[in-house]
Amino acid sequence: MDRLDVPPDVVIRRLPLYARSLRYLLEEGVHSVSSQELGERINVTAAQIRKDLSYFGEFGKQGIGYDVEKLLNHIERILGLNQRWPVVLVGVGYLGQAIARYEGFHKQGLQIVGLFDTDPAKIGEHVNDLTILPLDQLARVIREHHVRLAIIAVPAAQAQHVADLLIEAGVRAILNYAPIVLQTPDDVWVRYIDPVAVLHSLTYYLARESGD
Amino acid sequence: MDRLDVPPDVVIRRLPLYARSLRYLLEEGVHSVSSQELGERINVTAAQIRKDLSYFGEFGKQGIGYDVEKLLNHIERILGLNQRWPVVLVGVGYLGQAIARYEGFHKQGLQIVGLFDTDPAKIGEHVNDLTILPLDQLARVIREHHVRLAIIAVPAAQAQHVADLLIEAGVRAILNYAPIVLQTPDDVWVRYIDPVAVLHSLTYYLARESGD
Repeated sequence: MDRLDVPPDVVIRRLPLYARSLRYLLEEGVHSVSSQELGERINVTAAQIRKDLSYFGEFGKQGIGYDVEKLLNHIERILGLNQRWPVVLVGVGYLGQAIARYEGFHKQGLQIVGLFDTDPAKIGEHVNDLTILPLDQLARVIREHHVRLAIIAVPAAQAQHVADLLIEAGVRAILNYAPIVLQTPDDVWVRYIDPVAVLHSLTYYLARESGD
Repeated sequence: MDRLDVPPDVVIRRLPLYARSLRYLLEEGVHSVSSQELGERINVTAAQIRKDLSYFGEFGKQGIGYDVEKLLNHIERILGLNQRWPVVLVGVGYLGQAIARYEGFHKQGLQIVGLFDTDPAKIGEHVNDLTILPLDQLARVIREHHVRLAIIAVPAAQAQHVADLLIEAGVRAILNYAPIVLQTPDDVWVRYIDPVAVLHSLTYYLARESGD
């Protein structure tokens, strides 16, 4: 395989899982791991791991395996995690609150620098160290913190409008929790988290099992 | 294409998005839609939609398009949504609270029938109409409500243990929010919702854009 091939998006989506698994290994005091062992932890074949990593260079030695710390550092650099990423969050309902309070972001290079909502009752409230701001402050915060990454956790009816505001202000990647597909320019990346859709894809298999 | 082909999982994952889009159309009073129009709403090509649906039979007429309500009903039947699905939720922290309170589940065929946590301070508290129960009640609730679908929203360190308990009690499909890959038998379906991993796959593209 030509190492200069552009890695497919499905490979990019697996890299964070490799990184996380390597972080767990390091916490457990494991310093060397085979692609076989790494694969078993994340239900990926050893061949898949080797193929995925081959897009980015030569890692590990035949029969010796990977140096956990080196491989982790390398994958983190590939993912841009050698820097902290400022993030804004729009929508501070129950879900937004949970996102704002989740320590996993902060610990893993993602710093929420702004919380926004349209509900006048919420504006001015604090979550952790941040004050919930109205949408007319969005562009200013995005500019001041050089934000290019945003999380949308508003109801479906508001999500497209929020996305438009974010993109106009300079955001280039969005994680959207609202149950609606966003219309965005080609140079903006959008990912979706959609638990109802995920559960409905599971009921498909359950219905089949029970012969419904 | 042979219509008796087993549809790949990626097709099954798209069906809920088609269903949702058709529901929105119906709410807007639209009764007929072309694969082109439907595709534009969810960023899928018309050809993809036709191919996906062809696994399940003949829909729509050339030049006329799909009857929105009929197609929706058909997809809902395929997904097993002509019945309600009881679901248990384990882990009622901030995220679990948000999940328990989300109306989208209830409105779309998914009924949370049990909330569980290990924290003695939480047990006995109410969220909506449900009382948070200890894990030793899990098997009983799963049996009584014929539950086969569960949501895990506990910390990573507890997730595998919770999954083992769920599966032992009869659960066959799990939506896991904990940032860890679960080890499960082959006849159990597991899906992951992992916002940090999703955001890290976005920072990859942002880092590239800025030439970091």
